[in-house]
Amino acid sequence: MGIVGEVTATPENIRVLLDSRPEGFPSAGNFRVDAAPLPVPGDGEVLLRTIYLSLDPYMRGRMLAAASYASSVPIGGVMEGGTVSEVVESRDASLAPGDIVLSHVGWQSYGVQPAADLRRLDPSLAPISSALGVLGMPGFTAYAGLLEIGRPQAGETVVVAAAAGPVGSTVGQIARLKGARAVGIAGGPEKVAYLRELGFDAALDHRSPTFEAELAAAAPDGIDVYFENVGGRVWDAVLPLLNTYARVPICGIISRYSQTEPADGPDRSAQLMQTFLAKRMTLRGFLQAEFVDSHHEQFQRDVAAWVANGDIHFREDVVDGIENAPDAFIGLLKGESRGKVLVRVGADPTA
Amino acid sequence: MGIVGEVTATPENIRVLLDSRPEGFPSAGNFRVDAAPLPVPGDGEVLLRTIYLSLDPYMRGRMLAAASYASSVPIGGVMEGGTVSEVVESRDASLAPGDIVLSHVGWQSYGVQPAADLRRLDPSLAPISSALGVLGMPGFTAYAGLLEIGRPQAGETVVVAAAAGPVGSTVGQIARLKGARAVGIAGGPEKVAYLRELGFDAALDHRSPTFEAELAAAAPDGIDVYFENVGGRVWDAVLPLLNTYARVPICGIISRYSQTEPADGPDRSAQLMQTFLAKRMTLRGFLQAEFVDSHHEQFQRDVAAWVANGDIHFREDVVDGIENAPDAFIGLLKGESRGKVLVRVGADPTA
Repeated sequence: MGIVGEVTATPENIRVLLDSRPEGFPSAGNFRVDAAPLPVPGDGEVLLRTIYLSLDPYMRGRMLAAASYASSVPIGGVMEGGTVSEVVESRDASLAPGDIVLSHVGWQSYGVQPAADLRRLDPSLAPISSALGVLGMPGFTAYAGLLEIGRPQAGETVVVAAAAGPVGSTVGQIARLKGARAVGIAGGPEKVAYLRELGFDAALDHRSPTFEAELAAAAPDGIDVYFENVGGRVWDAVLPLLNTYARVPICGIISRYSQTEPADGPDRSAQLMQTFLAKRMTLRGFLQAEFVDSHHEQFQRDVAAWVANGDIHFREDVVDGIENAPDAFIGLLKGESRGKVLVRVGADPTA
Repeated sequence: MGIVGEVTATPENIRVLLDSRPEGFPSAGNFRVDAAPLPVPGDGEVLLRTIYLSLDPYMRGRMLAAASYASSVPIGGVMEGGTVSEVVESRDASLAPGDIVLSHVGWQSYGVQPAADLRRLDPSLAPISSALGVLGMPGFTAYAGLLEIGRPQAGETVVVAAAAGPVGSTVGQIARLKGARAVGIAGGPEKVAYLRELGFDAALDHRSPTFEAELAAAAPDGIDVYFENVGGRVWDAVLPLLNTYARVPICGIISRYSQTEPADGPDRSAQLMQTFLAKRMTLRGFLQAEFVDSHHEQFQRDVAAWVANGDIHFREDVVDGIENAPDAFIGLLKGESRGKVLVRVGADPTA
């Protein structure tokens, strides 16, 4: 009886599992929530309590069986994701209970990871949640892709879509810091107003029936850098405006993630290659991970300073409760979120 | 009568004019040959007698009215092209009659150009015709595109199509000099045999019904650099074999030049972008001209040395007579030529 009582008092690990692979757009039915006993850390590992879970578009790819740039989540497996966690129990000398770490335990309230895979966060320097946003993977995606591939020069024009999101909003603000003209594209008047607040030189709504003409007017000298993360109608409007020697870093094609059928003809792929030749353009797909060794330290110095002195603003869209992660994720894919989407899975002891 | 007699004795300028724009594949009827009086040089200019005229695939683009990366030849205008010429009359102190120069007088037997636009050739260093081939624009296209964009590393696999041509054959030989595996693709057994002579590690015939499987077998570790100059079926076969971080310099898409209708669906352009993202690849259209300032001196030193010591071989396909330029050009587009295609317009005094 004593033992049973203790077990009942022990917290459970609430997990969100992939229950089925989506065909087309993901739905809540593709996920399943369960409760499991807490995992037990081995030597060199720590038990982590999740505080914040990051939701990101790339997770759509992990739900598919098809080979993508990273491996799929298996059916019945815990959905993958970056987290900020508190160390509950440590079996490694480098970390102690109460430490706050950047981790990757996925969509669950507890997890075990090797201490060597974790980075300790200093809550006195920045809100711990920002390690998943502007000072984390989305911010670094913007920084590395824009500066290393896009290479905007003063006076050039940089266009970014999904500009109200954590990557796009950082791209636009860094572009302006480099002296470029920043044109942001988002869906709906509220997001467009937010882009204006952030200081974008022009802010456009891609739902406007005259979007193509508005984009041409907003880029009177053409487009030198297009930071691609949506594809679809926006890309079709950007392509004819790209200048000779334009650079197109591609970090995502959110309009493609849920598309299962080939698009109607004609086949424009050869024409696309021809355009890249005629305009001597650079197209470069990238993942932020490839630039971590070479650029992450500089990123942390630069962006932490820009955030601290008010040159870069960011916002977070926080949903409470791990069981709400599926709906929040679907909302993110539908463009309903505002800023960096986080799930507050457990109490933030630093707040 | 004396004057008439003199006019008859004076050489005429035989010119090949663009008579009509081709729809689809160019034909002899798109050209017209005429005879005109010799042009007269002004101050700072020279009168040139054409010795060799270079024929190149890019000229197809110049025949079109559609905006390409360079301006069109007007109807009734002289077809454009690089030439090696002899100075007949000079009105500039830097050049004297008898000098041999790299020039750009187009498809005609005489022309006038500013002396400042010409580069004097030293016939004792290399055959003057090679200034239009391996030591000229095609060789430089190969050198700059492969080394600056493709950046082959030792042990990597480089694939090039149109490999028996002046660009492709140089790409493959430089790739081998850099320690890479060179796979060449050409049309027909004679060209494939030539690639083997040049030392390509593998040589494939794109007309083979099992071409796709042969390419996969010839690149067992995948493809790291694809030097794109043909498009079409070859590109379709290359794309699935490209490795993560592959580089694709595009210097031409010969299969597209004569295509006027959009291709049948489905539209694979979004899928193409997705592949570039998933494999983190670089696609870069280029023209050799953009690298002249930064790379041409080093190119001349490197390739002249490689040719002199036998590391790079080349061959020329020489047609006699300016009036035969249209047929030779059409043969080039059809893939019938062997090596660098030149028209010997007038006597070579250095031969």
